[in-house]
Amino acid sequence: MSLLKEKPKVLNVGLESFYNDLKAEGADALSIDWSPPGGGVPELVKALERLEGDEYEEANAKAIEAFTSSDPELISMKLAKEAVPALNGMALAHAGPPIEWERMSGPLKGAVIGAIIYEGWANNESEAISLVRSGKVKFMPNHDVGMVGPMAGVISPTMPVFEVADRVHGVEVYTNVNEGVGKVLRYGAYGSEVIHRLNWIRDSLYPALKEAIALHGPVKLKPIMSQALQMGDELHTRNNASTLLFLGEIGPYVKIGGMPQTQYSEIIQFIAKNQLFFLNLSMAAGKAMMDPANGIKNSTVVTTLSRNGTDFGIKVSGLGKKWFTAPAPVPKTLFFPGFKEGDANPDIGDSAIMETNGFGAFASAASPAVAQVVGSSASEAIRITKLMYEITLVKDKSFPIPYVNFEGVPRGIDVRLVVSTSIAPYINTGVAHRLPGIGTVGFGLVQAPMECFINAIKELAG
Amino acid sequence: MSLLKEKPKVLNVGLESFYNDLKAEGADALSIDWSPPGGGVPELVKALERLEGDEYEEANAKAIEAFTSSDPELISMKLAKEAVPALNGMALAHAGPPIEWERMSGPLKGAVIGAIIYEGWANNESEAISLVRSGKVKFMPNHDVGMVGPMAGVISPTMPVFEVADRVHGVEVYTNVNEGVGKVLRYGAYGSEVIHRLNWIRDSLYPALKEAIALHGPVKLKPIMSQALQMGDELHTRNNASTLLFLGEIGPYVKIGGMPQTQYSEIIQFIAKNQLFFLNLSMAAGKAMMDPANGIKNSTVVTTLSRNGTDFGIKVSGLGKKWFTAPAPVPKTLFFPGFKEGDANPDIGDSAIMETNGFGAFASAASPAVAQVVGSSASEAIRITKLMYEITLVKDKSFPIPYVNFEGVPRGIDVRLVVSTSIAPYINTGVAHRLPGIGTVGFGLVQAPMECFINAIKELAG
Repeated sequence: MSLLKEKPKVLNVGLESFYNDLKAEGADALSIDWSPPGGGVPELVKALERLEGDEYEEANAKAIEAFTSSDPELISMKLAKEAVPALNGMALAHAGPPIEWERMSGPLKGAVIGAIIYEGWANNESEAISLVRSGKVKFMPNHDVGMVGPMAGVISPTMPVFEVADRVHGVEVYTNVNEGVGKVLRYGAYGSEVIHRLNWIRDSLYPALKEAIALHGPVKLKPIMSQALQMGDELHTRNNASTLLFLGEIGPYVKIGGMPQTQYSEIIQFIAKNQLFFLNLSMAAGKAMMDPANGIKNSTVVTTLSRNGTDFGIKVSGLGKKWFTAPAPVPKTLFFPGFKEGDANPDIGDSAIMETNGFGAFASAASPAVAQVVGSSASEAIRITKLMYEITLVKDKSFPIPYVNFEGVPRGIDVRLVVSTSIAPYINTGVAHRLPGIGTVGFGLVQAPMECFINAIKELAG
Repeated sequence: MSLLKEKPKVLNVGLESFYNDLKAEGADALSIDWSPPGGGVPELVKALERLEGDEYEEANAKAIEAFTSSDPELISMKLAKEAVPALNGMALAHAGPPIEWERMSGPLKGAVIGAIIYEGWANNESEAISLVRSGKVKFMPNHDVGMVGPMAGVISPTMPVFEVADRVHGVEVYTNVNEGVGKVLRYGAYGSEVIHRLNWIRDSLYPALKEAIALHGPVKLKPIMSQALQMGDELHTRNNASTLLFLGEIGPYVKIGGMPQTQYSEIIQFIAKNQLFFLNLSMAAGKAMMDPANGIKNSTVVTTLSRNGTDFGIKVSGLGKKWFTAPAPVPKTLFFPGFKEGDANPDIGDSAIMETNGFGAFASAASPAVAQVVGSSASEAIRITKLMYEITLVKDKSFPIPYVNFEGVPRGIDVRLVVSTSIAPYINTGVAHRLPGIGTVGFGLVQAPMECFINAIKELAG
């Protein structure tokens, strides 16, 4: 009887060629890259067996309670050096796990050069490189000093940062101001227009926005994120709705007394027309929600996914602050006109905190427009969200996705589920040119490297 | 072979009980309330036969060209009496087809009383009613004087109106400013808070917004509507995204010099927090797009659907300005807390111009959130959009709906298709309390009465 009412939904387990044939025939098939749990590798099978038991379920229940009860609010803005003591002096924070200059990819090097010029520590590219080579510039991952930044994520001492606090768990997180798309620092560009925009952000946008936030009072970020999810955002590659909701929230509180018309117009225009403006706030909210879930003994929940353009790194709750890294893969990219295969840098940015948290590719089904932008399709977007339910612990009802019957986003990646199913987390991402100084080349889709999760499993199993 | 790849899609024709059984079994079924063409009524069958031929197809091609090529822009604001000569003096325009005071429903009477108090022609309800009974107040339908207004749609001489122009066809359309939800004039409320808000709109919002529009230059409305459709709006009952997109467009052009902070904050807040603010502009754009398609000999395209709370009226291109009316039905309503069955007034408002134009219920599939608000479901929303394809002439690619494979909205209701299929247009709508002075009681779903279309067919067939 059910054959008459439904077309078969085929779950292909194992060899992908069967799945490809089914899809070519138009069948509703889901392919799971199955090999026996842990890929049948005896060491992993044993590790996974060792990670079963009440102590793990209880630890993960605590982690779930932590990240679902978190309530991040935008409370103020500061200069980075006021927010992060380690940024006093000649120091730069960057996206992803720790990395030294020599191993940095082009866009990260470009952003470092730009930040040094912005800070006035050097006047041009070659001076900046000499300064770095002299060893005088200290580097640190954003994630290790309470910050996040998209793409290269370079944050220097006098850049303004948003201050996002979760008062439930006493967490504070900082993030920089999104510059827009194209030739921008976070994609490795450092020409005069980039520096000019960063100066304008510090001198014009920052004081006005800081004042507006003070006048408004704390801006709760979860309601904006939840509404935006009903409006086509997945909050990583698409923040169109969240940005406008933020503008609607903060716009009325801009203090216009004595403000020149030009400054006012530029500020409102900059927010309204930068459809990624809210991304950094989504990310800070993401870190503020996941940080309270980190450091819980025996918890197998992934609390960070991040990349520096060379290495991909993850953190797992039960393993605390330790990074587990592997080479960053190159995203499958839909290039902007003028760019081509080979231009793309390997995956970069702290923005995978969005996927860590259940958004971005995990919430693909909320955002068919993004599927088009990353070279996917609406049905593929739904498939990816459903696949991510396989490796996560909760469907968070605070963030319902309309076209998956208003089910919640998939939150709480379980490193055990990733390894046992061999399904690596998907990530929607911007793609930088692999050379410094150029910028955005497109948007793409990528999967986290399995090696990070395998190494974490081994360490968890002791 | 296809039985293996697809579940059957059942088109149930005729008795609805078969369809209900199929749905209960979870089958993908579409029910068409079939009776033979024209319900098998010999007179209608003959009329439909008489309306076949090249002259009708050619006329409809012209109508389609007219409404698809239209390019409405917001160009300015005026007082209603400056925009519409007939509103000089003691005159009020209202939604729907023509109607005299005695036959007006509660909410329309309430809005008339409120507008008279607002204009200062009377000081209270009883004075206002006496004035109307004296015959001194002239009434006219908005649609007949180049205007549209949601719900009661009452527009009085000194209310500010938006001026929307389609320069392709030389059309100008006016609409009033949306007041928000709850106790508002358009839902028949006329207490002091209502009058106070109308005064504020005239004295504070209007001059500032008029100046901002002048500074910005013409605001193209189709791109905002198209983007909003990708962001969960169907542009009738939900205008959340379009309102914010409009704020992002016009916000930077508010002239802040000399403006008190309170006025500025109130204006931006009023737009940002009134999720129906853009509705009136959607409606004016709708009329500006459909008006050029009216008056084409032999065209069977419906160019107006509108209701005054007592009568439902339509206009058909080949029949020019003539109204074809029938009693307005009561919407199937999802009531706000505190209201119940029996409180709902029959269908009211010019806002069905949205459905006339391919939005609202016709674009249901774009807006699963609205399906929830009007008491429907996401799958029902998709079903309604697909059903509306059955009675319309084009899928307009300028307005793609993500979850119907990015197919365009159903535009160009053909009065022949409505009568031959017996499928009446669906409408998403706000619902007013049936008594004057109360306001909004909920949102609902309603179908246009078939009688209007049947009468138009008869007249077209001569």
